[in-house]
Amino acid sequence: MRRFSRRSHRAGIAPGTLKTPHPAPADPVRITITDYAADRDVHEREVQHVRDCLTPLPAGATRWINVDGVHDATQIEALGRHFGLHPLLLEDVVTVAQRSKVEAYGDVTYLVVRTLRINERSEQIESEQVSIVLTGDVLISFQERSGDVFDAVRERLRAGRRQIRAGGPPYLAYALIDAVVDHYFVLLERMGDQIERVEETLIERPTPQVLSSIHDLKRELIYLRKSVWPLREAINTMLRNEGLPFAGELHVYLRDLYDHTVHVIETIESYRDLNSGMLDIYLLSINNRMNEIMKTLTVIATLFMPLTFITGIYGMNFEHMPELHPRWAYPALWLVILSIAGLMLLHFRRRRWI
Amino acid sequence: MRRFSRRSHRAGIAPGTLKTPHPAPADPVRITITDYAADRDVHEREVQHVRDCLTPLPAGATRWINVDGVHDATQIEALGRHFGLHPLLLEDVVTVAQRSKVEAYGDVTYLVVRTLRINERSEQIESEQVSIVLTGDVLISFQERSGDVFDAVRERLRAGRRQIRAGGPPYLAYALIDAVVDHYFVLLERMGDQIERVEETLIERPTPQVLSSIHDLKRELIYLRKSVWPLREAINTMLRNEGLPFAGELHVYLRDLYDHTVHVIETIESYRDLNSGMLDIYLLSINNRMNEIMKTLTVIATLFMPLTFITGIYGMNFEHMPELHPRWAYPALWLVILSIAGLMLLHFRRRRWI
Amino acid sequence: MRRFSRRSHRAGIAPGTLKTPHPAPADPVRITITDYAADRDVHEREVQHVRDCLTPLPAGATRWINVDGVHDATQIEALGRHFGLHPLLLEDVVTVAQRSKVEAYGDVTYLVVRTLRINERSEQIESEQVSIVLTGDVLISFQERSGDVFDAVRERLRAGRRQIRAGGPPYLAYALIDAVVDHYFVLLERMGDQIERVEETLIERPTPQVLSSIHDLKRELIYLRKSVWPLREAINTMLRNEGLPFAGELHVYLRDLYDHTVHVIETIESYRDLNSGMLDIYLLSINNRMNEIMKTLTVIATLFMPLTFITGIYGMNFEHMPELHPRWAYPALWLVILSIAGLMLLHFRRRRWI
Amino acid sequence: MRRFSRRSHRAGIAPGTLKTPHPAPADPVRITITDYAADRDVHEREVQHVRDCLTPLPAGATRWINVDGVHDATQIEALGRHFGLHPLLLEDVVTVAQRSKVEAYGDVTYLVVRTLRINERSEQIESEQVSIVLTGDVLISFQERSGDVFDAVRERLRAGRRQIRAGGPPYLAYALIDAVVDHYFVLLERMGDQIERVEETLIERPTPQVLSSIHDLKRELIYLRKSVWPLREAINTMLRNEGLPFAGELHVYLRDLYDHTVHVIETIESYRDLNSGMLDIYLLSINNRMNEIMKTLTVIATLFMPLTFITGIYGMNFEHMPELHPRWAYPALWLVILSIAGLMLLHFRRRRWI
Amino acid sequence: MRRFSRRSHRAGIAPGTLKTPHPAPADPVRITITDYAADRDVHEREVQHVRDCLTPLPAGATRWINVDGVHDATQIEALGRHFGLHPLLLEDVVTVAQRSKVEAYGDVTYLVVRTLRINERSEQIESEQVSIVLTGDVLISFQERSGDVFDAVRERLRAGRRQIRAGGPPYLAYALIDAVVDHYFVLLERMGDQIERVEETLIERPTPQVLSSIHDLKRELIYLRKSVWPLREAINTMLRNEGLPFAGELHVYLRDLYDHTVHVIETIESYRDLNSGMLDIYLLSINNRMNEIMKTLTVIATLFMPLTFITGIYGMNFEHMPELHPRWAYPALWLVILSIAGLMLLHFRRRRWI
Repeated sequence: MRRFSRRSHRAGIAPGTLKTPHPAPADPVRITITDYAADRDVHEREVQHVRDCLTPLPAGATRWINVDGVHDATQIEALGRHFGLHPLLLEDVVTVAQRSKVEAYGDVTYLVVRTLRINERSEQIESEQVSIVLTGDVLISFQERSGDVFDAVRERLRAGRRQIRAGGPPYLAYALIDAVVDHYFVLLERMGDQIERVEETLIERPTPQVLSSIHDLKRELIYLRKSVWPLREAINTMLRNEGLPFAGELHVYLRDLYDHTVHVIETIESYRDLNSGMLDIYLLSINNRMNEIMKTLTVIATLFMPLTFITGIYGMNFEHMPELHPRWAYPALWLVILSIAGLMLLHFRRRRWI
Repeated sequence: MRRFSRRSHRAGIAPGTLKTPHPAPADPVRITITDYAADRDVHEREVQHVRDCLTPLPAGATRWINVDGVHDATQIEALGRHFGLHPLLLEDVVTVAQRSKVEAYGDVTYLVVRTLRINERSEQIESEQVSIVLTGDVLISFQERSGDVFDAVRERLRAGRRQIRAGGPPYLAYALIDAVVDHYFVLLERMGDQIERVEETLIERPTPQVLSSIHDLKRELIYLRKSVWPLREAINTMLRNEGLPFAGELHVYLRDLYDHTVHVIETIESYRDLNSGMLDIYLLSINNRMNEIMKTLTVIATLFMPLTFITGIYGMNFEHMPELHPRWAYPALWLVILSIAGLMLLHFRRRRWI
Repeated sequence: MRRFSRRSHRAGIAPGTLKTPHPAPADPVRITITDYAADRDVHEREVQHVRDCLTPLPAGATRWINVDGVHDATQIEALGRHFGLHPLLLEDVVTVAQRSKVEAYGDVTYLVVRTLRINERSEQIESEQVSIVLTGDVLISFQERSGDVFDAVRERLRAGRRQIRAGGPPYLAYALIDAVVDHYFVLLERMGDQIERVEETLIERPTPQVLSSIHDLKRELIYLRKSVWPLREAINTMLRNEGLPFAGELHVYLRDLYDHTVHVIETIESYRDLNSGMLDIYLLSINNRMNEIMKTLTVIATLFMPLTFITGIYGMNFEHMPELHPRWAYPALWLVILSIAGLMLLHFRRRRWI
Repeated sequence: MRRFSRRSHRAGIAPGTLKTPHPAPADPVRITITDYAADRDVHEREVQHVRDCLTPLPAGATRWINVDGVHDATQIEALGRHFGLHPLLLEDVVTVAQRSKVEAYGDVTYLVVRTLRINERSEQIESEQVSIVLTGDVLISFQERSGDVFDAVRERLRAGRRQIRAGGPPYLAYALIDAVVDHYFVLLERMGDQIERVEETLIERPTPQVLSSIHDLKRELIYLRKSVWPLREAINTMLRNEGLPFAGELHVYLRDLYDHTVHVIETIESYRDLNSGMLDIYLLSINNRMNEIMKTLTVIATLFMPLTFITGIYGMNFEHMPELHPRWAYPALWLVILSIAGLMLLHFRRRRWI
Repeated sequence: MRRFSRRSHRAGIAPGTLKTPHPAPADPVRITITDYAADRDVHEREVQHVRDCLTPLPAGATRWINVDGVHDATQIEALGRHFGLHPLLLEDVVTVAQRSKVEAYGDVTYLVVRTLRINERSEQIESEQVSIVLTGDVLISFQERSGDVFDAVRERLRAGRRQIRAGGPPYLAYALIDAVVDHYFVLLERMGDQIERVEETLIERPTPQVLSSIHDLKRELIYLRKSVWPLREAINTMLRNEGLPFAGELHVYLRDLYDHTVHVIETIESYRDLNSGMLDIYLLSINNRMNEIMKTLTVIATLFMPLTFITGIYGMNFEHMPELHPRWAYPALWLVILSIAGLMLLHFRRRRWI
């Protein structure tokens, strides 16, 4: 999990400069172009270079350009030049540590959302930045790596559902964000299971390992919260800002999306509440155990210390100890010892120590 | 208690698709139709299928269609087609994990409220989604299962109370929500009793079991809060939004309902405050007990360790130990031992340890 | 202290139905009528039944009807019918668990405030609902039981102070609420004394009993807060809502009242802060004591365990133990013992354990 | 420190009645009059009675009447009558437990600020109420006792600084409040030093006394916060409320004052954060010490208990104990004892207990 | 780290008086002048005195006057006189403990931002005040000491980037603040590393030293938060306030800056959350260790106390102790001892103590 932004490497560079913050990985940028319209077939193709995707678009059609990988500054710049994108927008596309947001650059609308998923190997939450640019009939989406989060949307396009085919770039943008938010619920469910598992362990057998589980959970919830909160704000802006291209019929869908985001946030907050309670429970159950241990120690010490003292007395070597001589002395001593022990046990029982 | 939404199963499905999230249970959907008007008798009947309830309605009359069970997608879809309901609305009806809300889809008003009740067997809080759709003269209510929460409203309709008979769908919607909120108070009262019971146990005899009671209480309060908060927001929207059909005379009633919701929320917050204090009290009373135990141990050890040391001294086998020989030595030793013990007890008494 | 509302008994009853929530107590409702005007004498009388108080009122005069006891539904209903009061208003009057609020029902203004006082016998805070209805020249106040909270206002009326005589029902309403708020300060002062007492006990001698004092205090502060917060909101509404009859000159007085309420709330918040700190202090002082105890135990054990071991060595019965025979052996052993003890005490002193 | 308002003595008295809440102290009220104008000399005099200060004022001049002591109701009333001050205003002047505020009574503006200073003897924070009344060309300030907080302002008036001479009552009011706020910084600095001192003690040598220092600090910070917060609100009102006489050029100065108040509040909040952390640190360092102590005890007990048991074995008086007879038995036993001790010490070392 | 403002030295001084709060250090004020325009070369020079920088400026050009050191009141005053700066503005420039803010003084815009950096030697965060004054074509920046934070901006000016050359003083102001905010990210990254380091230590080996690391971290985060929050507010004002010179094209850049500030604040809040969790973790891991220690002690004591008691019994010197005489007595006793020990160990094992 790359936990906190590393924007610092940019310190001292002019705003709007395109310099990818990490060395370009080996795999090349993958660009997929999907052209569709309400009354025409979907046309998909994959190209190697940006310049191949700037073919003319028939009137009434929508073009979705999906770019997997943002490390190749030349390609991003070429796209930017062609569509007249603002340098700051391009900087945000390649500096993949943005908060979710929606911004208008003149006629261009720029959206950032963050995908969240659990890395199956490291069991940690991974977050990726998805940038969506709306300009005229074209929607450009940028992903850090190739992923399957948009596959369902592509499937729906192919299946020819009227709504998505006729909705143009704004509806497509909604569908993409909706796909991202839907994946949040998968994550939440897994975290819910995890919380239940930790709670059970806490009550049944609180080991020291639980402590780091609780802390990991806390860190993940902080991270989740930080990732999802801005999205709510962004969707709200999409709903209220009249200048953005999300008017009319789309409102109903965005309201639904907003509702889902609020639902996610409220669930995260509930989890946080539960998580913070866990530490208290753990502390208390440790204290309970300590109490048990101390009771045992005290019972044993209180029982045997006086008795050992008595044996010490009659183990002394004084010449004149009259008690040592009578035949009944030793059995009498046992009687004394047993009475003392009995009284003590009675006392402990009354105090509910044993 | 189905604690957190399982919306995830929908991930990857187009918004507005009707697919019930869990396999349909055996019992069929139950539909009750109640037609009434200010000056006519109430007409009630139960039908097996949606198509049987689409009979014409006399002018001035109000029709209440109550659907118990939302797992039969065909029926819900049939209703939706007939009344022209938005796909997203129908999706929310069958995906029974919505937050309370009020939404306008053109002329159609859609309300979600959540009922809360304690399952008598599992002693846990159960929540169900009630969807209310207002369209023209018709109010459609959807419940997850058959329940008795609306019986009182039905009774009032039959009894011919003027207010409810003449109020049309908006007043009926108010009456239904009011019935739901009234049940919240029953729940709160039970939780109040539970809190008092736990508090008494805490002070009288803090057992480790209390710990999990406190945590369960906490989880339930978090759940309650999450369920009730959105309702307040929704009622506020009903009061303020001019586009919704809750104007005029109804305002007074909605204001009253709003007040009740705020009352519920404030009581939940008070309970949460009390609940969070309980853990502190528990921790402190454990610590108090530990203190008692340690005092006992320390008093015993401090008393007998020096004395046992003394007996050890005179239990040694040195050839030349002059103290062992005088006749008065053994009684003198007892005197020493008793003086030391007396002084120590005095010291403990002064420190309030015994 | 009836801590939480028992509105639940109403669940299933139509809103606006008058059914008093608890069986009527033996003592009858007491109704006092006070007629006054700026230029006339105050005319007071007590009647047995509501119907006796509906005599005509001279022009320019104000009538104050004070009803002690709200358990007689017939009387309340008679009043309601005569003055045309809304059923929901009457329901709120008899359901004595309302939050403080101000509501307009057409020309009728309805106010709820809660009195707070300490029950001298149970030492607990008691709260009563006072309902104030303003309609035309008449002010009707409802109290749960006969109390003395309004005596000072009555005295001022009798004394013929111009302001109150000429102010009409709105000024009278202000005077009544002001009397209620003034009593809050008495309560706060007592709680302040209680807090100081608990703090002193905490520092001087933290007994386990303090724990329940702190928790009681917490519960009372939660209760106070819940009672006073809504009043602030209500007074704010009186100040801002143009439709209410509290305009002009009265504004200055209401502003003053608002200020007092804010003062009360801030003091409660300060008390809550202090209260929450007490538990920490208590925990720490218990821990400090535990530390003291453990130090004593450790010093004693560390001192005597090695020494007892040494005596154990020379108490063994081996045939060949050369140390036992020399004449100087026993004194030498004492020397060894005293040196070890001395060194240990030095070590403890350096560690500040003794 | 008079910690909480004692307004309760007023309960049952008509609002606007002038009754000073505590018996008049011996020292008489001291009234200072300062007349000044932009182009004239400052004229100062001290009078015994209010009636002496009602001399006519030349046009264009400003009169500052400073009243030290508010316990003499006759004098305050005389002032009130002359300047036509509202009874509630006068009540607030003498009831010296007001929150900071600004209020308009028609043309009269009434300001309350609270001075804060540390009483050098009791080392506690003392707060006094300063009331400022602006009416026409006259500013009247009321202080509870004679103090030096306004000396600097007076000095500036005498020094003939143009700004203050020409600013009239509003600028003078600003200058007085600024003088009060400047003293807050002195206080904050002392508290900052105190916090640093406590922090050092905490880390170097956490004594039980630190506990009450932390609690005192907490109480003082709560008190400070409660005193300063309303002032921010009041200055904000002065900035925004068009009806108040603080327009034009003065805005820049008030904005500066507002900024200082926010600075004070933020510093208080930081101190509160630090303060709340202290208790945690203290708890942890006590626990750390306890750990140290327990380790010592456990090491000693674990070392000597088995060894003492061994000596016990060979101290028994059985007739037939073959080990007692060989010549090498005693040295062999020492070997055993030393090996056991050595192994244990090794074990402790590995566990990092010693 | 100069932690809290020392404004107090100013108490009693007229607002707007220029008196530097600390004695002037030896090194003189350093003034750098940079003149530039879109179509001309950058002209840089360094002067010894303010009077040397008041040369006429060609039309269309922008002048950036950077002043390193604000301790020389004469120079600051000379600048103020020449550009007609308000006395309060100059006071804020030299009193270097301002919160970040933006203020309009007529046509002059005044900005305060705070730089943050880690002092490499003391490892503590240092903050400096940067004041920026915009007046006509001139931008004046004041730094407390010579620093390198603006070097990157200067480099960009020299490099002739069109945007910055043509943007005039407002764009330059933006660029300077952006440079400051960029450095915040460097700081955050270092704190993130520090947090990770502390977390690792906590889990691997919680030493008492960690405690003060956590507290230092807490103090630094409080300080950071206090420094950055006001900046967000200030940038928001720059965006919204129409009267300020940051309109048009610049909006996009300021929005970006605002976003970065929010990002910084959210990261700080996350760090605070993590930091507060650390203390709990630490407390719990101390308690866990204490538990371990107590278990060891209890096991040892519970094992050896009864056994030592038994050896005590047979170490007594009674004349008539029949058990002492049989030949099998001693081996039998060993059998008894070993059985007891075995049973106890079994018991401990079952309780998971060993």
